[in-house]
Amino acid sequence: MKSVVIIGSGNVAQHLIKALYKNSFYTIIQCFTRNRDSVSHLLDDALITNDYNLIKPADVYIISVSDAAVAQVSSALCFENKLVVHTSGSISINELDSKNRRGVLYPLQTFSKNKELNYNQIPFCIEAENNTDYLLLEKLAQSISSNVYSTTSQQRASLHIAAVFVSNFVNHLYEIGNQICTEKNVSFEILKPLIEETAQKIKTISPKEAQTGPAKRQDTIIINKHLQMLTQQNHKEIYKLLTQSIIDNEKKL
Amino acid sequence: MKSVVIIGSGNVAQHLIKALYKNSFYTIIQCFTRNRDSVSHLLDDALITNDYNLIKPADVYIISVSDAAVAQVSSALCFENKLVVHTSGSISINELDSKNRRGVLYPLQTFSKNKELNYNQIPFCIEAENNTDYLLLEKLAQSISSNVYSTTSQQRASLHIAAVFVSNFVNHLYEIGNQICTEKNVSFEILKPLIEETAQKIKTISPKEAQTGPAKRQDTIIINKHLQMLTQQNHKEIYKLLTQSIIDNEKKL
Repeated sequence: MKSVVIIGSGNVAQHLIKALYKNSFYTIIQCFTRNRDSVSHLLDDALITNDYNLIKPADVYIISVSDAAVAQVSSALCFENKLVVHTSGSISINELDSKNRRGVLYPLQTFSKNKELNYNQIPFCIEAENNTDYLLLEKLAQSISSNVYSTTSQQRASLHIAAVFVSNFVNHLYEIGNQICTEKNVSFEILKPLIEETAQKIKTISPKEAQTGPAKRQDTIIINKHLQMLTQQNHKEIYKLLTQSIIDNEKKL
Repeated sequence: MKSVVIIGSGNVAQHLIKALYKNSFYTIIQCFTRNRDSVSHLLDDALITNDYNLIKPADVYIISVSDAAVAQVSSALCFENKLVVHTSGSISINELDSKNRRGVLYPLQTFSKNKELNYNQIPFCIEAENNTDYLLLEKLAQSISSNVYSTTSQQRASLHIAAVFVSNFVNHLYEIGNQICTEKNVSFEILKPLIEETAQKIKTISPKEAQTGPAKRQDTIIINKHLQMLTQQNHKEIYKLLTQSIIDNEKKL
C-alpha cells in the first residue's frame, strides 16, 4: 500500500480524492488546503491540514492547484527528495522545485463540480524524472484508469491546447446553440441527439470525413441567410470565421 | 400501408431509404434520381427512375435534393394536389410549388455516407399545410423515430443555424484538435474520452455550467502561452475569438 498526500482542493483535487477513495493500492493519508470546506464532505476532518509543517511523510505528493501557484507551493514544501507531482496540462515538469523528485500526473478530462465521472475512461498523461518514479506513477494511474500514456512536457502542452479546442471551445458552441434556441423559442433538447452523434461519429471516421453542412458544401445562399438571421455580433463573427476555416480546409488535400 | 416516393439520392435520401426499408406502415415504391448508381445498392433496379413522367402515384413524395434545387424539382413534378414534402432545415415550406399539398419532414442529424445511424433517436421536425397531411407525416416520422416535433418554418430555420454551431462547427474544432496532435506527434486517440464526456455533460448540466478551461478562468498566462504555441494563423484567430466570446459570456448574468 502506497500513501498519497493531495495538495489543493479544487475540481481536479476533489475528483482525484474520489477516484482514489477505496483504492486498494494507494491511500490518501492527507489533504493540504486552505479551504477546508471544499473537501470536508470527502475526507475525515483529521486528514485535512492547512499547515505546511504538519504535512505527513508519503510516497507521492500530488499538487493540484492553479497553474500559477504550482511553483510557489512546491517551493513551500518543508521536505526534500520525495516524489512531488503536479496535475497541470500546461506547465513543464521543471516548474516544480528541484529539491524534490519531480513528476506529472495529468488527467485529460473536463472536471465540473456537479458531474460524476467514470474514472476508468480518463486518459492520464504521466512523466517523471527517473524510471522508478515513472513506474510508481504509472501504477497509480493504472489503478484508476485503463488509459495511461507516457508524454513529455511538450506533448502534454500540445494535448492541452488541442483539448481547449475539442472541449472548452466545443462546449461554448453548445452554449451558443442554446442561446439561439432560447432566443427563437425552440427547445435545445431537440439538438441533443445531433450533439451526441457528432461526438460519436469521429470514433469510426476521421473529423475531416465526418464534416457536413453548408460550409463544406460552400452553399453561399444558406451561409448568407444564416448570417442575416443571427442577431448577436459575436455569433456572426464566429459563424464567419469557422465557415471560412472549413472552406479553406476542404481545399487542402 | 402508405406508399412513398423518394426524389433524390444524396446522403439524406439514402438514409431515409434505409430507415423506411422493411417498415410495416410505409413502403418505398420508387426513387427518382439522375444518379442511379448512388441508390442501386439499396433498391431494386425496377424501383429507380429518372423520368418525371414515370413517377408513380403515391401517398407522399419526399424531395431530398440540395436546397437550391427544391423549388425547381417541385415545379417539375407532373401531378397536382398530392402531398409533397422537402427535407431541408433552411428553406420554407412555401418554396415548394403550390400545385401540390405541401409539407416538411426535416431529420435533424448529421448524415455521412459511411456511418450507420440509430434512426430511432433522430429528431424529425415536421410541418404541413393541413391537419390530415400533418398527421400522416407525424405517423410516418413516428414509424422511424421516437423524437418527432411540430415546428414552423422559422423555428426550423433557427434549429438549423443552431445545428451548424453544435455539429458542423464542433466537428471542425475536432478537426483542428486532430491537426494540432498530428503536427506535434501525439495521438488524437488520447482526446476521445474528453470529446465524449464534453458531449455527455450537457445532458445533465447546462452548457454555461459545464464550461471549464483557461478562458473561463481568464487565465491570461496560459492563453498567451497557447497563442504562442499555435503555428497556424487560422487556429490562432479561432482561439482568440472563442476565448473572448467565453470571457464575455462569463460576465453576463
